[in-house]
Amino acid sequence: MKTINLDYAAGAPLDRAVLDKMISFFTEDYGNPSSGHSLGDKPRKAMEEARQNIALLIGADSKGIVFTASASEANNLAVKGLIKAGKKKGDHIIASAVEHFSVLNQLKSLQKEGYKVTLLPVDSYGAVNPEQLEKAITDQTILVSIQTANPEIGTIQPVEKLSALARDKEIPFHTDASAAAGWMELDVEKMGVDLLTLAGDQFYGPKGSGALYVRRGVRLMPLIEGGIQERGLRAGTENIPAIVGFGEAAKVARENLEERSKKFAALRDELKESLFNSIPHLHLNGHPENRLSRNLHVSVSFVEGEALLMRLQMAGIYVSSGSSCTSQALKSSHVLTALGLSPELAQGSLQLTLGPESKAEDIPYITEQLGEIAALLRNMSPLYHQYLKEENSNA
Amino acid sequence: MKTINLDYAAGAPLDRAVLDKMISFFTEDYGNPSSGHSLGDKPRKAMEEARQNIALLIGADSKGIVFTASASEANNLAVKGLIKAGKKKGDHIIASAVEHFSVLNQLKSLQKEGYKVTLLPVDSYGAVNPEQLEKAITDQTILVSIQTANPEIGTIQPVEKLSALARDKEIPFHTDASAAAGWMELDVEKMGVDLLTLAGDQFYGPKGSGALYVRRGVRLMPLIEGGIQERGLRAGTENIPAIVGFGEAAKVARENLEERSKKFAALRDELKESLFNSIPHLHLNGHPENRLSRNLHVSVSFVEGEALLMRLQMAGIYVSSGSSCTSQALKSSHVLTALGLSPELAQGSLQLTLGPESKAEDIPYITEQLGEIAALLRNMSPLYHQYLKEENSNA
Repeated sequence: MKTINLDYAAGAPLDRAVLDKMISFFTEDYGNPSSGHSLGDKPRKAMEEARQNIALLIGADSKGIVFTASASEANNLAVKGLIKAGKKKGDHIIASAVEHFSVLNQLKSLQKEGYKVTLLPVDSYGAVNPEQLEKAITDQTILVSIQTANPEIGTIQPVEKLSALARDKEIPFHTDASAAAGWMELDVEKMGVDLLTLAGDQFYGPKGSGALYVRRGVRLMPLIEGGIQERGLRAGTENIPAIVGFGEAAKVARENLEERSKKFAALRDELKESLFNSIPHLHLNGHPENRLSRNLHVSVSFVEGEALLMRLQMAGIYVSSGSSCTSQALKSSHVLTALGLSPELAQGSLQLTLGPESKAEDIPYITEQLGEIAALLRNMSPLYHQYLKEENSNA
Repeated sequence: MKTINLDYAAGAPLDRAVLDKMISFFTEDYGNPSSGHSLGDKPRKAMEEARQNIALLIGADSKGIVFTASASEANNLAVKGLIKAGKKKGDHIIASAVEHFSVLNQLKSLQKEGYKVTLLPVDSYGAVNPEQLEKAITDQTILVSIQTANPEIGTIQPVEKLSALARDKEIPFHTDASAAAGWMELDVEKMGVDLLTLAGDQFYGPKGSGALYVRRGVRLMPLIEGGIQERGLRAGTENIPAIVGFGEAAKVARENLEERSKKFAALRDELKESLFNSIPHLHLNGHPENRLSRNLHVSVSFVEGEALLMRLQMAGIYVSSGSSCTSQALKSSHVLTALGLSPELAQGSLQLTLGPESKAEDIPYITEQLGEIAALLRNMSPLYHQYLKEENSNA
């Protein structure tokens, strides 16, 4: 049977160039960059080259890049690291309601410790309104954390405008760019951010590769204390193969940014058009234009997402019905709830993320299968039959 | 020129079987174990198989294994995670003076937060005396953390006796077994420990692979908050290739434990004998017998370790003159200081760690080179000439 992966946000194969670059660091150049002797030289040089490539992807000084093992770790280092350093006095933190759980769950813990948290609402497209941020800032605000783009619905946030408001009041601004990096142009200067989270595995780099950009002058306490690696900000033997792969993926992403993003946006729009042209009761989630190029997110009325997902899988099509971190735990995503989507539409949602093997030839098959399965499930829904009855009586 | 690596503690090549097992998870089986669809099945199964193999290496229930990205992270999760969970009331923590910095530096931070810390002294071999622990325990003690074996000098601690004292008082006992695991038999039941730290890269597994064993009933707060991976104890997309490699390395280590450890102990003893038979002014650090099989640690009187290291490197021999995490930062190791070694002997110390390419045929060359270089450097030392003068006048 055909296999069509439309869930590349959950995981993607390594770019061949990336894996090729990594291999020798597993077997030959296995030295420790912190070593006093020359077995550490090649790994150390490769690590600094990777740091440079990652910095270039976001227009940053490479000295500001701190390697971590994931975006979740980088988000934790950003939020807890900044707050523990306690440079700015106050007890108020602002974030958006659609942040990743690796931001939101920290805030819940910090609330228990006595911090005050404001979660900014989003509009029906998932975007934060700068006016809402302006109103939320107080003289006690010590951190604003708003993502660059949403990992689930793909909506891009107006980070530049948001960060300007924070900067005006000298409040550090963190952005989780893990879904955005590698897929849109990012520049920490233009964006005006102090802390920025990256995930290598979100742009065909290896799992276990993440980073936090830290602007010069921003003081953090380490989350993982110990050795003096990463200028004392993150202890532990450097995972050189992952770092090297991360750097190579950043290089490839930067060199192909425009081409990749145009190609995926075109393919995504073709898929969107095909689905909306032939499937009734379909709703687009997220912003119609201002969204990540590889992301499409839809809700199917009268249909339960899990059932859809299972039947699509039987047809060889793999999609997600929420963020992969939560799909095993929760029914309805906090992001869709924040959009004001009805529970019914939130439960019938599908996140479609394109990747290296996505192709236009598969669109008719995807459309046909999704259309048939949606029709089948809809027919099994009491809500749908009630809706039909009401439509008929209205007619 | 010959290349002889005697610094495998700082980094070692991946076992071929380990790398082979990892590769498909980079390129084909790249799915996310948390996915709701079947692309996550193979990675999830592989992850649980790895968890099982790691558990078997330490006689634990696989449910107790929490994956991390390093031993440093596992040590931080153990200490801070336990203290933050605050199940046992009190403000006193006990550790040994020869713990790794990823334990010691946390304790420094905790002291600043108001916790009281007792660092137990060690004897001249580097071992903790259980009587010292018994005296140090108070009704305020909430954690005892003592390593299984020292990563620098290789001395094995009497963990069983130490943990029994903590257990008597219902105090959780953590042991950093990152240097020991894979090289000696470990069993969390016999050892009587509640938390145990592992590092895959210390037994030919990949960098970026670590774990914390957590005994059932021991409550921890996560260090990295976010998704519900690792039963909520460690958020972030699972690094499946690293986890799979870690599991395979654990399997290989377990299957070859006795053979490996005998082989290395024999080779190490042969090296030791050869060095001590032909090089004067040499001192053994650590316990003569009760030490890790692949570890040898010596001090050369009248000689500075860094100079020795540099000249050995010119002869193609790579050694370490302290733990690799600190060799770029500090002159004298806290471990050697804790043994009561004179600063002079501490500075002239060499850590020799055997590995996969170590062989008996190299011993004469190592002995000859170290002998010649030590003699050369000794002759340049004013202290040595003073010593000779005193010897002559005494004669």
